[in-house]
Amino acid sequence: MLSVSGEEIAAMDDRYRVFFVNALSGLKPAHLIGTTNAEGQTNLALFNSVVHIGANPPLLGMISRPHSVPRHTLENIHATGYFSINHVRADFFEAAHQTTARYDESEFDAVGLTASDGEIPAPYVAESGICIGLKHRETVDLSINGTHLVIGEVVEVRLPEDCLGEDGAIDLGKAGSIAVAGLDHYYAATPLGRMAYAKPHRPPRRIESDSA
Amino acid sequence: MLSVSGEEIAAMDDRYRVFFVNALSGLKPAHLIGTTNAEGQTNLALFNSVVHIGANPPLLGMISRPHSVPRHTLENIHATGYFSINHVRADFFEAAHQTTARYDESEFDAVGLTASDGEIPAPYVAESGICIGLKHRETVDLSINGTHLVIGEVVEVRLPEDCLGEDGAIDLGKAGSIAVAGLDHYYAATPLGRMAYAKPHRPPRRIESDSA
Repeated sequence: MLSVSGEEIAAMDDRYRVFFVNALSGLKPAHLIGTTNAEGQTNLALFNSVVHIGANPPLLGMISRPHSVPRHTLENIHATGYFSINHVRADFFEAAHQTTARYDESEFDAVGLTASDGEIPAPYVAESGICIGLKHRETVDLSINGTHLVIGEVVEVRLPEDCLGEDGAIDLGKAGSIAVAGLDHYYAATPLGRMAYAKPHRPPRRIESDSA
Repeated sequence: MLSVSGEEIAAMDDRYRVFFVNALSGLKPAHLIGTTNAEGQTNLALFNSVVHIGANPPLLGMISRPHSVPRHTLENIHATGYFSINHVRADFFEAAHQTTARYDESEFDAVGLTASDGEIPAPYVAESGICIGLKHRETVDLSINGTHLVIGEVVEVRLPEDCLGEDGAIDLGKAGSIAVAGLDHYYAATPLGRMAYAKPHRPPRRIESDSA
């Protein structure tokens, strides 16, 4: 077992530290964020920081890097008030990763993914299993390091019918959703099991379900 | 393809909506948060909302539910100023899930996990592959729904030596870290590949590495 101190992290080479610290948060969801700018050009960006904020109202957040350089996704969200969150699937993760290159044209055209129109002024990714349309609600500036927590309210969800269970749970394994570790290690999800609601003085118990 | 509107989500039965919305953020990391209260009793709680905030300084955040009822983890962090983030491994995910039951005693004893002392006044989980010690830096209250973004700075990392690559990347597959979907579906991570740094006008390219 290796022990690494805060001082040793501070003394790391920049690139080494970026790889190291980005892995600490564990397996992260991989999403493509779809937006449109004021001139109508679409934009697609890979984010690994989407987080559940609440179910009622349905709120999702994501961390945007500091706006000290142009951030198309953040600017487009503020310009139009809308964005889409699209789950990356195992069968197009290479194209999703390629959106992280610096493009002047729309990343849809550059990497060969298909923009699909929905109810909101932001494009969906047709190849995604699960597409979520959100209305921007709030951007919380995190003064601690200049990043931004962007919060949106879910206004539309598109998902394959056979992934929705009778109790409302969504089978993300069947939907093909993947995870990412650090900056560039991609992982598929292999089911371990579904657990019953935990109660004290009763042993943990697996359950079967139509969506597991 | 099913389309579900914001109005339909608002009209869902509470429990159905909780399952549905909790799956939208995709595959989430599964972590046990270790804390100690002012009387020295240890506490262990499962969180699925740890998110990378920044690498330099090394900052991690997590979303705490509203403090309208007692929240031991949040209270202990504010009382002691420290907490630990411990990656849940596939070989003890049932015990990790069981910490979500309401216990009066320490969850370590209740579910049979082992508290391990480190440099900080918060316990590590000895069974975890990767254990992170954090100093509390800030709690950002999210007025939109009463939740809290708790931000800590990494002061110690413990990890298996053979999981650390030469470039600083950590092999979370080898470390046994897992993901969770919704509230109770657990998944192991199966490697898809590691991608090279993306550049425009060059096709996406996989790389091999000692940590992939």
